[in-house]
Formats: sequence, C-alpha cells, structure tokens
Amino acid sequence: MASSTKSDFLKVYSVLKSELLQDPSFEFTDHSRQWVDRMLDYNVPGGKLNRGLSVIDSYKSLKQGEELSEDEVFLASVLGWCIEWLQAYFLVLDDIMDNSHTRRGQLCWFRVENVGTIAVNDALLLRNHIPRILKSHFRDKHYYVDLLDIFNEIEFQTASGQMIDLITTLEGQKDLSNYTLPVHRRIVQYKTAYYSFYLPVACALLMAGGNMGNHTNVKSLLIEMGTYFQVQDDYLDCFGDPKVIGKIGTDIADNKCSWLVVQSLQLANEDQKKVLVENYGKADQACVEKVKALYIELDLQEVFALYERNSYEKLLSSIESNPNKAVQAVLKSFLGKIYKRQN
Amino acid sequence: MASSTKSDFLKVYSVLKSELLQDPSFEFTDHSRQWVDRMLDYNVPGGKLNRGLSVIDSYKSLKQGEELSEDEVFLASVLGWCIEWLQAYFLVLDDIMDNSHTRRGQLCWFRVENVGTIAVNDALLLRNHIPRILKSHFRDKHYYVDLLDIFNEIEFQTASGQMIDLITTLEGQKDLSNYTLPVHRRIVQYKTAYYSFYLPVACALLMAGGNMGNHTNVKSLLIEMGTYFQVQDDYLDCFGDPKVIGKIGTDIADNKCSWLVVQSLQLANEDQKKVLVENYGKADQACVEKVKALYIELDLQEVFALYERNSYEKLLSSIESNPNKAVQAVLKSFLGKIYKRQN
Repeated sequence: MASSTKSDFLKVYSVLKSELLQDPSFEFTDHSRQWVDRMLDYNVPGGKLNRGLSVIDSYKSLKQGEELSEDEVFLASVLGWCIEWLQAYFLVLDDIMDNSHTRRGQLCWFRVENVGTIAVNDALLLRNHIPRILKSHFRDKHYYVDLLDIFNEIEFQTASGQMIDLITTLEGQKDLSNYTLPVHRRIVQYKTAYYSFYLPVACALLMAGGNMGNHTNVKSLLIEMGTYFQVQDDYLDCFGDPKVIGKIGTDIADNKCSWLVVQSLQLANEDQKKVLVENYGKADQACVEKVKALYIELDLQEVFALYERNSYEKLLSSIESNPNKAVQAVLKSFLGKIYKRQN
Repeated sequence: MASSTKSDFLKVYSVLKSELLQDPSFEFTDHSRQWVDRMLDYNVPGGKLNRGLSVIDSYKSLKQGEELSEDEVFLASVLGWCIEWLQAYFLVLDDIMDNSHTRRGQLCWFRVENVGTIAVNDALLLRNHIPRILKSHFRDKHYYVDLLDIFNEIEFQTASGQMIDLITTLEGQKDLSNYTLPVHRRIVQYKTAYYSFYLPVACALLMAGGNMGNHTNVKSLLIEMGTYFQVQDDYLDCFGDPKVIGKIGTDIADNKCSWLVVQSLQLANEDQKKVLVENYGKADQACVEKVKALYIELDLQEVFALYERNSYEKLLSSIESNPNKAVQAVLKSFLGKIYKRQN
C-alpha cells in the first residue's frame, strides 16, 4: 500500500481553500478575499505536512488494507488539513511571541510588508477555519461532536503548554536552575506532543469508528513519541542546518527551556555553569557562540545520540507489545518518520 | 421580575474560574495556576457585563415570567460568561493590534509588567476556556452541538469583521475615499453586532428550546441594533468622557474607518477634505485636535443625535411589529439599555 502522496493531499488543500473563500457566513470583498487567499498560501501548505499526511496513513493502517473509497480518503485528508491549519495558526503566533525572523525558509508572516500585527488576527482566522471545515464536511457524521471536542481539548492543551513555556522562560531570566527535566517534559508534552502525535491518530480512530478512550496505552505512547520529537527539535535548533530546517534557531538567545540547556545544567561543573548563567538568554551573537561552545565541550551531541537510540528502542519495544497489528503499523510508521530526522 | 444582579452573576464567574483552575486536562504548576488566575481576574469580569447579563434577561423574557429553577439561572449565567470570555479574548488582542494604552480604566493587559507578548497566548487561553466551560456544563444537553456551532460561527464572523477593519485601515492610509458607509456597515456588523447582540439571544433561544432559524427577522433586527451600538462606540471614542468609557479614544490617530470620518467625508467641502487628508491617521496630538475641530465645525454631534433618534424610532417600530410578545420584551430590553448610552 503506497503512502499518500503530497500532491494528492495538496489537491484537497485547494478544494478547502476555495470553499473557505466562498463561505456564505461572511460577505467578502474582493480585497479581503485576496488577503485570505494569500495568507493561506503563505502559511498553511508550506511545511513538511507530516501531521496532515499521518491522518491518512493512520486511517489506512487502521482499515488494514481494505480498499478505501475516494470519499474516505478525501475525508481523512480534510482532517489532516485541519491539523495543518492548527499548526499554521500556532506558528504564526509563536513567531510573533518569539520575535522570530524566518519560518519554513521564508520571512515570518508578521514580518511581511503591510502585515505586521494584522498577523495576530490572521492567526485567529486560521483557527476559525477549522470548525468551518469540520462543519462543511462532518456535520452529518455521528462522530461530529467528538471531533469538535477533541480539537477543542487538544488546542487547549497546546495553548496551556505554550503558556508554561512562556512563563518558565520569564522565570528563567532570573534563575536558570528552574530549568529541569520534569519542567521540560511538561512543556513539550503539552505544547507539541498532543497536537502533533496524539491528534492525528485520534482523528483517524474516530473516522474508523474507534475511540481513544479504549486505547489509553496508545495515547501515552504517542505522547512519548511527541516528547522525543520535540527533544529533536530542541537539538536541531542549535545543531541543525538552517537551510534544512528552514529557520535560524533562537532558543539560546531567547533563554528557552530547551533540552540542551537542561542537559548542560545537569552536566556542567561550577565554572561551566557560570558560563551558562553569564551568556544564556542574551541576544548578543558572541554570547550565543559561547553557549554553543560549551554544549560541544559537554559533548551534548553524543548525549543526544544516546538519548535518541534509547528512545527509539524503548518506543519500538512498547509498540511491539501492543496486541493490535493495525495499531502497531500506525505507530511504527510514525516512529520511522521521525527517527534520526534532520528537519 | 427583577433584572439579574451583577453580584449573582459574578458568583458564577468565581465558580467557573475555580473549575478552570482545576481542569484535569492540564497539569498546572502553582505558578501557572496563579498566572491564569490573575489573568482571568484582570481581563474577564471588569467590563459592564451587558452581553453576559443579557443572556439571563433574554432567557427570563422568553420563559414569560415562569418561575425559573436555580439550575436554569445558573446555566444561562454560564452562557453569559462564555460571551464575556469571548469579549475578553477579542479585547486583549485588539489592544495589541491597535497598540492601545488603557482598557476598562486600567492598563491594557499586554502593557502590564512581565506580560508583553505573552498576552497573545493568554488571549488564546481565554478563547480555549469557552469550549471547556461549555463541555463541563452542556455536554449532556441535546443542544450542545448547536451551542458549539453557534459559538464557532460567531467567532468566525467577528474575526472576519476584524480583518476587514484592519485591511481597510491599511488601504485608508493611501486613500481616505475608501471609507464609505457600506464599508463601515460591513465592518461593524461583523466585528461587533454578531457577538454582542445576536449571540446572547441565540444562546437564550437554544436554552429555551428554540432556534434562530425560525426567527430570521429577529436576527436582522439584532444586527441592526448592534450596528447602532457600534456607531455609538465610534462617537464616544471621540466625544465620550475617557473617565466614563474607561479608555482614551485612538480612532483618529489610528486612521480607523469610524462612522465620524465617514460622515465628515460626506459633508466636507474641498478645503475641509484637505484638512482631513492632511491630519487623519497621524499620531501627532495637534493633528488629532484639528480633526476633532473639523468634526465640531461639521456639527457631527447634531448629525449623530439625529442618527440616534432615527435609529431608535426605526428599531422600536420594527420590534413592535413582531407578533411574539416574549421576543418583543427581549428586544425592547436590549434597546432600552443602549439608547443614549454614555459608556
């Protein structure tokens, strides 16, 4: 069974965009329609689309090779796009809050000429498109209300994770010793794992007639995988290739509670801690370089490689202990996509 | 039948806040719980609460003097608070986008020490609290899915109205002649009227077992009323007392498509138009004063008084042509609250 292709998936994006630009609940002017059109193209389809595609792949796995109807593939794609819309909404706002410069290899939306703080409202529009899309395509399904509930719950968890990230960073400016592994785990679980890993599978399960309530161990496994994914993200922010990851990392300058700083606080001696305290969270490039040099001195690349190998093995053995072969296939596909990723 | 008191309504706020601070879908730390607690108290209950209270009053009118159970009053109050939460979410973000200074007689939330752009995420939390509250209290009601749909639709319309407001302002910087009455009507209808006037009544109707689908003339009447309300807002931004309205107006400096500038563009001769073009949308206080002087020269206070009287009479006669006495009572109560308001 072939994996869903990006080009088929992108065709569904065009359908959804046209529907949104003709939404009868709002009287568009030509100008406002063009604005939304451009805003969507700029922010929604330009990522790796892994989260969106994984809904389709998960649904296919859950149906265990049954021939899928065109309609089923379309609906799974629609749910996939809802997650991509959710991601776009978070990224537009995250970039404003983090004062970032680039995203997916282009200027952040709020930095585009004439956009500025209008980007805040554009992000709300992105978020509001999700229930519009769900209503158009799922209003008559028996699981419609469950879909609304799950999107609402996951968005709440993501925004809550973002909150602890932001206020932890504020505290960290006074005292770096607040950055511990349990704090880091809580941030990444809520701000990344739920919507990136749990939500696509929960959507596929609902469509396939199941319910995450009966798969609690799958849920915790997906959250574990999401945590590992965000640790990779923290690693790539410093050690990834900006050309490959599509942005220039800013975690060190932004004083973020990154997995790297948490590890180095654990490993550093008193002198090294002093280097961290004096240079972490400063916009000055020389300070950033000193922190990077310390990371290398502490051999964090090796520490990460070890963490990655251990996580992979632990996740794989948990997956293989799951009695349901279809669910196993879903989880293995996720793990395969992220293990040793470079972007 | 006594109108709902603010103090009873505020008791329900405390209940909802406690529930949100114990939400099992998120692992709060003491610090993050305190943050949300303070953020809610700062942003949610400090307004006039008219939108929220009007759900309870509308529900009472629809039940035509039937004795209401404690539970019914509580649920209507909960829906009222959902609208206040929605309002708080919009205001926090509007103040960021408009770069405002004060709101409800205090500093805008994003200007409070240590808050800054975290306010963007706090607004998302406010927005995300609404479905949490709805789920806790309405999940088992047959109209739960309709409630979710209506909140989603109205939020979409409001964000769309905010979009045309923002991009119209952008256009207006090049050419003020874009500011016409139809453009103004569209902005205020979408960004204010739906959530401030239509939503409270739609909520009360759902609770009372009705449905706005059977009351289309009521819907358009509420939208008319909301439009009149926003024209008042535009007027008060310039001519209201900052101590009474709780904020210092910024529409002139911000180049807003306000009802006042639309009227003055219609009434001005060529010399007066030149004054507008040269001074409108400048942060300079001297320019703002010149625009205000022109408004007075054009007698906009009288133009507004005439508009206000006409609107009132038109609305009243439309209301009185409605065959349903209970619905009439709802609408008259709304109109009575806003006619000649000073804040």
